[in-house]
Amino acid sequence: MINRFKLTIEYDGTNYCGFQKQKNLPIKSIEETLENAIFSLTNQRVKIVVCGRTDAGVHALGQVIHFDLDKNFDAFKMTSALNFYLKDEKIAVINSTKVDENFHARLSTKMRFYRYVIINRHSNLTLDKNRAYLVARKLDIKAMQQAANFLVGKHDFSSFRDAECQAKSPIKTIESIIILQKDDKIFIDICAKSFLHHMVRNIVGTLIWAGKNQIKPQDIEDILKAKDRSKSGPNAPSCGLYFLESKYNGAQS
Amino acid sequence: MINRFKLTIEYDGTNYCGFQKQKNLPIKSIEETLENAIFSLTNQRVKIVVCGRTDAGVHALGQVIHFDLDKNFDAFKMTSALNFYLKDEKIAVINSTKVDENFHARLSTKMRFYRYVIINRHSNLTLDKNRAYLVARKLDIKAMQQAANFLVGKHDFSSFRDAECQAKSPIKTIESIIILQKDDKIFIDICAKSFLHHMVRNIVGTLIWAGKNQIKPQDIEDILKAKDRSKSGPNAPSCGLYFLESKYNGAQS
Repeated sequence: MINRFKLTIEYDGTNYCGFQKQKNLPIKSIEETLENAIFSLTNQRVKIVVCGRTDAGVHALGQVIHFDLDKNFDAFKMTSALNFYLKDEKIAVINSTKVDENFHARLSTKMRFYRYVIINRHSNLTLDKNRAYLVARKLDIKAMQQAANFLVGKHDFSSFRDAECQAKSPIKTIESIIILQKDDKIFIDICAKSFLHHMVRNIVGTLIWAGKNQIKPQDIEDILKAKDRSKSGPNAPSCGLYFLESKYNGAQS
Repeated sequence: MINRFKLTIEYDGTNYCGFQKQKNLPIKSIEETLENAIFSLTNQRVKIVVCGRTDAGVHALGQVIHFDLDKNFDAFKMTSALNFYLKDEKIAVINSTKVDENFHARLSTKMRFYRYVIINRHSNLTLDKNRAYLVARKLDIKAMQQAANFLVGKHDFSSFRDAECQAKSPIKTIESIIILQKDDKIFIDICAKSFLHHMVRNIVGTLIWAGKNQIKPQDIEDILKAKDRSKSGPNAPSCGLYFLESKYNGAQS
């Protein structure tokens, strides 16, 4: 009998080295901070499985993890008890549920949702420092959305793939990219079943090229065809990226 | 010939002692930080006048200040030049304009807009830490809005006035209080020509009483009539409060 728990997690990624533990780094990871809190609560060392590993500085509003406990534990109490141990951290448990052993935070995902936040103005950031990417030059949102439309669908995303990416195939299917502007904020919402390493931020960097009219929207077709990372835009800064949520099959979501 | 400048300012109030200088405090004020930046730029020591003095921890998206320079200065360049000197601060200049000598950031105001942000959930705050007030107990928004409606209009607000308030009269006119909920966030938007010291936060503390059903909405009438600070709710924490904007007559706004 496995006691498997699915937790929804929120975090401000600014002062962590990313989700995953990094050897020889003095900065804590989200992963070890969560595993330490689970140990404080249960006296058991668990290995947590995460839906979407995030880099240093990337935030999450609805990250999903799972882990197994030897003993049973009340899922409702899990939330508040873990939050007690996390009270000095910028990590919070939003929800906990018991799931069956077929549930897997990473492999069972049907759809992942990311948001990238740009602030398009000249003035420095204050409240949004480390929470959005400041772009001073006025962006052409229409051109960005047109460029984005060329990325939607099933493509070889080698041009948007980090050199360290370990995925077997560069073929991915983007369900949608929706770009919205509210005052000086630009929100880029991207959803797909899965992504390559740095794919969202490389896409954003390329869409910003389109927004600055440095490329034409239809140039995206050539960038995709090239299957060459050097043809696409820079990796947009991690501080603007949010893991929003992950969808699972009905009973598990 | 007076060279008067009107600036719109944004700040994260978390690490400042408030807008105003505080003697014997090691923490910087927004005021002296701005005055130092203006001195770095112009080599002139000015005294800035602010629309709404904010307490330690209170934020602003559109605070308004004015000051006079002996020499003329290009208003457009003022924004970027001051932001250069403010780049390591959580204060930014959003806009600068030259105004005539009749403009006064505090006295010319026709309407001030404040927003109070509550996050209504059990989990700790992460991205919104120091940017919103966490209330775990489920709030009854309808009761809060009903209570708020009793405050709108011209009243003696002595029951919502801090003991240190220096205003000559406790009579103020609230134009509107609008309470909106989006997911676990509750926004309380209050607008009036002017407020008493701590009035917005004392109102919010009282509306939270109504939201917890600790008082009935119509109890607000008795609280107003009492003209006694001890009858209203606690001063809600400063971290949830934002100075949104100030309206002036057409040519100056």
